[in-house]
Amino acid sequence: MTTADGTFGAAACSTCDNGAPLGLNPTADHPIAPGGIPNPGATYVVPARQGRAVRVRRGQTVCIINPHGTQVGDAWALNTDDLGEYLSMPHTRAATDHLIPRVGDVLVSNRRRPMLRFSADTSPGVHDTQMAACDLYRYRGLGVADYHDNCADNFRMALQAVGLRAQDVPAPLNLWMNIPFQPDGSVAWLPPVSNPGDHVMFTACMDLVVVLSACPQDIIAINNRKPMELHVQVLDADVGAASSKEKERST
Amino acid sequence: MTTADGTFGAAACSTCDNGAPLGLNPTADHPIAPGGIPNPGATYVVPARQGRAVRVRRGQTVCIINPHGTQVGDAWALNTDDLGEYLSMPHTRAATDHLIPRVGDVLVSNRRRPMLRFSADTSPGVHDTQMAACDLYRYRGLGVADYHDNCADNFRMALQAVGLRAQDVPAPLNLWMNIPFQPDGSVAWLPPVSNPGDHVMFTACMDLVVVLSACPQDIIAINNRKPMELHVQVLDADVGAASSKEKERST
Repeated sequence: MTTADGTFGAAACSTCDNGAPLGLNPTADHPIAPGGIPNPGATYVVPARQGRAVRVRRGQTVCIINPHGTQVGDAWALNTDDLGEYLSMPHTRAATDHLIPRVGDVLVSNRRRPMLRFSADTSPGVHDTQMAACDLYRYRGLGVADYHDNCADNFRMALQAVGLRAQDVPAPLNLWMNIPFQPDGSVAWLPPVSNPGDHVMFTACMDLVVVLSACPQDIIAINNRKPMELHVQVLDADVGAASSKEKERST
Repeated sequence: MTTADGTFGAAACSTCDNGAPLGLNPTADHPIAPGGIPNPGATYVVPARQGRAVRVRRGQTVCIINPHGTQVGDAWALNTDDLGEYLSMPHTRAATDHLIPRVGDVLVSNRRRPMLRFSADTSPGVHDTQMAACDLYRYRGLGVADYHDNCADNFRMALQAVGLRAQDVPAPLNLWMNIPFQPDGSVAWLPPVSNPGDHVMFTACMDLVVVLSACPQDIIAINNRKPMELHVQVLDADVGAASSKEKERST
């Protein structure tokens, strides 16, 4: 890797890519529809322990539903026309000045452009932006010897199922994940406080691929130790705008 | 981008790369030494508004010094042998259960392997893992029309100066950056509380390239509105281990 003059070889980045799944589950060949293009208003199931990619056009609203209330959903969004632009939690926190997104926040990309407007949330609003998606390394560390479904691979496979590939797994928005933090910065990992049927809505500010993983974590308590399915819908109307206005009027 | 059968073209990822700087400053051609290889014990200056890459071998300790106490340092680390493995804040928070690293914490990579042991900190310990590196988009948003030095480009240029390139800019460890958070998750952006001459030490758990940017932010208060230089040293001894033991004995 080091050349005679002490410099690095230019090929050092040839192995940079983190886009390939480290194992497989049905996510890889079960898109919601060819190309991930939804029928507006239809309900699609993200089965327990799996992921799905859904195209959401600018102005459409994606609605993510937690049927049992106990399930964490790892969520990502990528610019349809350039997968190098993706929803970024570190940029979003800087844009919103919130560690946890709230209704009304505009979530931004790694190029600080608006991607998603958080337009409705029927749950108590406990979500997480701190933790990496679970991955095979995580389960190795938790003592799992064989392959374990994981959100990072679900992201990679869900893209693969619609003919796409990203070079890395961005830090996700962990919907309903309950990671309380103390003033000293220490955190805990607790089950969701959301209720059965709770949903969140995000209105797309650009054409996006939204990826959702029903987190397969069954070793620690964050899914109440029983991974369940999630539902996803894409709505043509900017439903969230009405919800937000209602919220404004009521507060 | 969409083919006749509704699927995405496989080439959608051809523009994924975020490795090229969006502008230049002297960082690009002023490495600390050929290949970024330091003389152990020597002090290298990271000039105000610039970045530098430094090779740190496993078992060596990198010491980062804040001569004026008012300067934020954006820090990254990459596996020398595979730049696709990098210090990851979302994985580190999950490993340490801390939003802000503390002495004794082991900071991990995106593959959850130990990269840096936080071995000493003479400052009050106020650092940040929440915020993305400042970038050209950030300064555009703050009203700067021309090029503005920024930490993201400093990272890219510092690597370039030692013959390397990464495909993206990971979320940095923002040394001495003062981003207090409230129980409701709202944050503020305040000047550092560190003192002149404060330093932090990290012992390398693998062969690394450490990149440091003396943050050029002069519009908001996080560098007390006057970007200054930082110093960096690489020490052959595992100095931090002694410091940590002393700390253990004293507590």
